[in-house]
Amino acid sequence: MPSAAAITQTVNSYLRHLAEGATDQIVSLYTADATIEDPIGADVLRGHDAIRAFYAAIQDAKKDTELAEIRVGGNEAAFLWHLTLDAGDSRTRISPISVMTFDDDAKVASMRAFWSPSDVRVL
Amino acid sequence: MPSAAAITQTVNSYLRHLAEGATDQIVSLYTADATIEDPIGADVLRGHDAIRAFYAAIQDAKKDTELAEIRVGGNEAAFLWHLTLDAGDSRTRISPISVMTFDDDAKVASMRAFWSPSDVRVL
Repeated sequence: MPSAAAITQTVNSYLRHLAEGATDQIVSLYTADATIEDPIGADVLRGHDAIRAFYAAIQDAKKDTELAEIRVGGNEAAFLWHLTLDAGDSRTRISPISVMTFDDDAKVASMRAFWSPSDVRVL
Repeated sequence: MPSAAAITQTVNSYLRHLAEGATDQIVSLYTADATIEDPIGADVLRGHDAIRAFYAAIQDAKKDTELAEIRVGGNEAAFLWHLTLDAGDSRTRISPISVMTFDDDAKVASMRAFWSPSDVRVL
């Protein structure tokens, strides 16, 4: 089982790469057959190709990320974080609660993001 | 699928009954074969008898609860909340991130609480 420190490090890397639009680095945090469901209820995507396409679609958006709260248990983590999108004349924020599971190397085996359009706030 | 409003109402009832130590009311929020895992990694408890024993063990502790953030997706919710324990000469706080799934009547089918002893703060 990965350590809580290793899991936390992966989550921080994920949020940093997300802010940077560093799609390849994000994909490298996932296991080969990882799944993502973002937001909850959306189609579940599986594997690096599908995951790459998901993040590539948003990589050019100007954005920032911030980790607010994280709880680690076993090989899982739940964390509240902020995604601030800067569209030039408007800024919006979504604050999902995401749940990830990890393999022994602290790579992400699954990611599920709890948020809905009604959670988007205009800053 | 239950509405987001119905899910949120169940979560609020859960936290209120938890603060009150109202074990029977808590149990009534769960489906008959519901499971709880609290904290993550602990044995999974199933069914009303096991769930009642779990909450009865803490019902007499003086405590307060507060919902901080909730995100609802489909028939699931993730929420950050505060549990403040008042032992007379000391007060401690745990702020778990809990994940629940719900049946069509917004009863809790499963509850998993992300927290660990290292998250306990002395106030």
